[in-house]
Amino acid sequence: MIKAGIVGGTGYTGVELLRILSAHPGVSVDVITSRSEEGIPVADMFPSLRGHLDLAYTVPDVEKLAQCDVVFFATPHGVAMNMSPELIERGVKVIDLGADFRIKDVALWESWYNHEHTCPDLVAKAVYGLPEMNREAIRGAQLIGCAGCYPTAAQLGYLPLLEKQLVDHRRLIADCKSGVSGAGRGASIGTLLCETSESVKAYGVPGHRHLPEIRQGLTQLAGRPVGLTFVPHLMPMIRGIHTTLYSVLRDPVDPGLQQLFEERYANEPFVDVMPAGSCPETRSVKGPISAVSAYIVHRMMIRLWYWR
Amino acid sequence: MIKAGIVGGTGYTGVELLRILSAHPGVSVDVITSRSEEGIPVADMFPSLRGHLDLAYTVPDVEKLAQCDVVFFATPHGVAMNMSPELIERGVKVIDLGADFRIKDVALWESWYNHEHTCPDLVAKAVYGLPEMNREAIRGAQLIGCAGCYPTAAQLGYLPLLEKQLVDHRRLIADCKSGVSGAGRGASIGTLLCETSESVKAYGVPGHRHLPEIRQGLTQLAGRPVGLTFVPHLMPMIRGIHTTLYSVLRDPVDPGLQQLFEERYANEPFVDVMPAGSCPETRSVKGPISAVSAYIVHRMMIRLWYWR
Amino acid sequence: MIKAGIVGGTGYTGVELLRILSAHPGVSVDVITSRSEEGIPVADMFPSLRGHLDLAYTVPDVEKLAQCDVVFFATPHGVAMNMSPELIERGVKVIDLGADFRIKDVALWESWYNHEHTCPDLVAKAVYGLPEMNREAIRGAQLIGCAGCYPTAAQLGYLPLLEKQLVDHRRLIADCKSGVSGAGRGASIGTLLCETSESVKAYGVPGHRHLPEIRQGLTQLAGRPVGLTFVPHLMPMIRGIHTTLYSVLRDPVDPGLQQLFEERYANEPFVDVMPAGSCPETRSVKGPISAVSAYIVHRMMIRLWYWR
Amino acid sequence: MIKAGIVGGTGYTGVELLRILSAHPGVSVDVITSRSEEGIPVADMFPSLRGHLDLAYTVPDVEKLAQCDVVFFATPHGVAMNMSPELIERGVKVIDLGADFRIKDVALWESWYNHEHTCPDLVAKAVYGLPEMNREAIRGAQLIGCAGCYPTAAQLGYLPLLEKQLVDHRRLIADCKSGVSGAGRGASIGTLLCETSESVKAYGVPGHRHLPEIRQGLTQLAGRPVGLTFVPHLMPMIRGIHTTLYSVLRDPVDPGLQQLFEERYANEPFVDVMPAGSCPETRSVKGPISAVSAYIVHRMMIRLWYWR
Repeated sequence: MIKAGIVGGTGYTGVELLRILSAHPGVSVDVITSRSEEGIPVADMFPSLRGHLDLAYTVPDVEKLAQCDVVFFATPHGVAMNMSPELIERGVKVIDLGADFRIKDVALWESWYNHEHTCPDLVAKAVYGLPEMNREAIRGAQLIGCAGCYPTAAQLGYLPLLEKQLVDHRRLIADCKSGVSGAGRGASIGTLLCETSESVKAYGVPGHRHLPEIRQGLTQLAGRPVGLTFVPHLMPMIRGIHTTLYSVLRDPVDPGLQQLFEERYANEPFVDVMPAGSCPETRSVKGPISAVSAYIVHRMMIRLWYWR
Repeated sequence: MIKAGIVGGTGYTGVELLRILSAHPGVSVDVITSRSEEGIPVADMFPSLRGHLDLAYTVPDVEKLAQCDVVFFATPHGVAMNMSPELIERGVKVIDLGADFRIKDVALWESWYNHEHTCPDLVAKAVYGLPEMNREAIRGAQLIGCAGCYPTAAQLGYLPLLEKQLVDHRRLIADCKSGVSGAGRGASIGTLLCETSESVKAYGVPGHRHLPEIRQGLTQLAGRPVGLTFVPHLMPMIRGIHTTLYSVLRDPVDPGLQQLFEERYANEPFVDVMPAGSCPETRSVKGPISAVSAYIVHRMMIRLWYWR
Repeated sequence: MIKAGIVGGTGYTGVELLRILSAHPGVSVDVITSRSEEGIPVADMFPSLRGHLDLAYTVPDVEKLAQCDVVFFATPHGVAMNMSPELIERGVKVIDLGADFRIKDVALWESWYNHEHTCPDLVAKAVYGLPEMNREAIRGAQLIGCAGCYPTAAQLGYLPLLEKQLVDHRRLIADCKSGVSGAGRGASIGTLLCETSESVKAYGVPGHRHLPEIRQGLTQLAGRPVGLTFVPHLMPMIRGIHTTLYSVLRDPVDPGLQQLFEERYANEPFVDVMPAGSCPETRSVKGPISAVSAYIVHRMMIRLWYWR
Repeated sequence: MIKAGIVGGTGYTGVELLRILSAHPGVSVDVITSRSEEGIPVADMFPSLRGHLDLAYTVPDVEKLAQCDVVFFATPHGVAMNMSPELIERGVKVIDLGADFRIKDVALWESWYNHEHTCPDLVAKAVYGLPEMNREAIRGAQLIGCAGCYPTAAQLGYLPLLEKQLVDHRRLIADCKSGVSGAGRGASIGTLLCETSESVKAYGVPGHRHLPEIRQGLTQLAGRPVGLTFVPHLMPMIRGIHTTLYSVLRDPVDPGLQQLFEERYANEPFVDVMPAGSCPETRSVKGPISAVSAYIVHRMMIRLWYWR
């Protein structure tokens, strides 16, 4: 039985992780932390877990977390980097669902996140947590910086095309549509129902923090720097991301894009290449029929699509 | 041209008022205040007003407000009572859309709002702003405490029945369903889209602040203390209130409930008694075809209905 | 391995049943029928089942269905009663999620459903599928008429009170709020997003088909005919029912309502009595953490609540 | 007083037109037709018009329509072309909100709409109803084929750029997001709340009927055939279109894109160029503060935006 801890258990990422882990036969969640909710049973806050989880929030404490086999950080950037060094040193596996270990270029990270990084050496060791790109490395890693939400969608969509140099890497466009949960469970006027329902808008157009992360991944896939336009949009719904990717094919693809994607993702449990001609709906991946128990590093399932 | 001022112009009530007033041919909005948005043009914050309103927020200042003919307070409770005495003294008409002047029993108000009232004498002078009950008094009043949202719906629905003693006044039940905008435009987790969309709940069941206000109005209508159960529910939508009222008829009503309601509200521009057998939808009163210019004290239009 | 068949597999009830059954370790779904979708793989229609279910729709055929151990009808009223007699005769267990076998008084059923009943003898044999009332009978039954959606909510809420004669049985009021999925997956203007989103309404006020069903159940619980006012409301959301029940307590309940409900439902896996003072939200029971595998007769989980 | 008739008054376009016209001081709506609702008062169907409009649906009758000064068609394609020739001949002005007169190439229209065109000669005479492109021609036209919804958004966004040859006309991408009302008020499973709420999808990817219309307009603006990728997406909301347009600037624009757009649209009442750096939200143009009375040919207001 793997002993797991979760730092930051009151946000949407943390509770989703909890939902998956609490149903996982090989995992016991032993610690879940929240400074503000100390002593409160998790099931009081999330009644859907009543009867499934007998655990209360505690204040984050490295000593207690160090007794876990694995600790997940479901926290805003800046938290994981403070607690990870000691956990790593004591042999705990650390999986950060936040942004602290995603970007290899520490100066770049600091400029986008407006924050000094306190453990650049760990950044160098961290494995980028996108299994379709890094499965083997993830398997053995002690520190994993999970892919962001938009970056997951954009990278998985371009991956088969860039790996084989099939598209013009200088002209990539990712038009991304996200539900509101991506903004997190913090009190904010901008994500009130009255401000986001029955409306659509683009945001972060001059520059969104996921831009350097996507660019890093696509550059790695293409083997050279890519040109990317990334426009995130806010959708009037709770959950899901739909990404429409545009690019220019260099040559006709033989034997075809559909087959290219199907073959590349044939053995990927988190990617489902839809049949030619179909258009995926985000609702199809909202309530997965089987708990995604094997891979907890992924925060969402992605379906890819394309058209001629 | 009536010179109007608005204190608290960034909330949902304030901007709705602004929308109505800015299209009113006989009103000019000269002052709109917001401490946090000082200097910001209103149309920057509410782009739908671009080109219709050339006005910026200023810090609340009694001196400037006193130059208006009428000042509206679209503020949380506790604000209007602080500024009103001086405005009243200087001859300004004050219309409070908040809760400071709704409840005549000051001790009762203080216990529900957990706040000391600073001008109980003005409470005594204030007219309760529900034109279907108090039209003449409103016309001449210098201080109006407008009815709350749930109270408007509940009182208008029971009014024809209680006035004529047709129902058992001890057994009144108001099952109220409100959109999320009623909670205001403040940063709060409880009213995020992700917390309120795709879900329904009751709230404030042990006691909502509108309970004493409704009870006061129904008691006045019935001529004796009423027994009222009031359960507010939060709907996954922005705007609108639907109230289902239950009561026990004392005797058969002659010539019938439909006619009773139609006659009572025949000349009321804000009440539309739907035909017998029809069920009103809140969306029908969301975007009024004609600006409600005559009566700015009302924050919503109500449609009544009943069944046998 | 229990061999199951589903008649009517394209509606919301059918596909939800399929979702539950396809994850059930002791059940294999061998037949799923739909006249209009013959030959189409189920996963083509519901992409969330891709990879989890390898089954195509077939035309309803009693011969094939008779080879199942159990056949579910997820059909509009009038379908189950036509096919059930032969299946029953051949030893198949029949579970009707529709309305054909819910109401014992056949004449009453015929007047509300405006349809002649073709097998009144089976109605007499059918067990009403609400496990909290009929667990033992359901266990041995060959024919089960599952409770409707509103009736489930209303009966479970009143059950502990009526069983013990604690409330005035002549004055029961059920104010019910349902998502739109209750109207089914049929093409209809009334349930378009544009007609139901951002609005609330009551409907079926003069008489909804679930009224006689609820009345039948409550009468059985109370041991005498009840007086019931039932008002269904349509909520702007996909899924869930919230029922607010009103009644008049005869005497103080000793030792209290909370304990009464907790004790009555202590061993009921589908009912969760929330702590005193809390208000349930329908979203808490939308995506159950564990598949509801044991009891497939229930179409939803219910949480009860009350207040003083 | 202009006498107006509306053919097809039960759909979303027709009732919106009615809402605008019924508040217009210079127009009287004398005829509104609907085959299915003959004799029904419009206000029975749309309660928000109660008290504002005393008119009932009649069966379409050229004789009665010919007595109007202007007749609007708010109908599916194929209706306007059948009735227009006689109305035109009798001197009535015809404004088609549908698709019959939008595309000049009749063979192209016939292939996309899968319908034989019955009056190709009128197509030649019809003016394309987008005032920012054709204001003067619209003023004098007897037959106007109003722009479609997606085409309005796409053409207005590219207009200043293509007119001045500032972008590569071979590489235009329009990523369009529409509310569900665009699909019309017809009974259909695909636009049920349960099918469209809480989800996003692309649709019509291999070819949407608005593609040739957009291409026609952009080609006219650019003065040569354009290359266009157009991907419509369905948003979980009632109303509004958000279009994100991508193109490649040929050279730096002097003195800048913001000024280019502001100058081009300085006198256009239906286009509001937002300040540099801002991102428009569709909700800002949902409930226009002033009735759009002068130009009834437009079905929506558009705000443009861009970024570097």
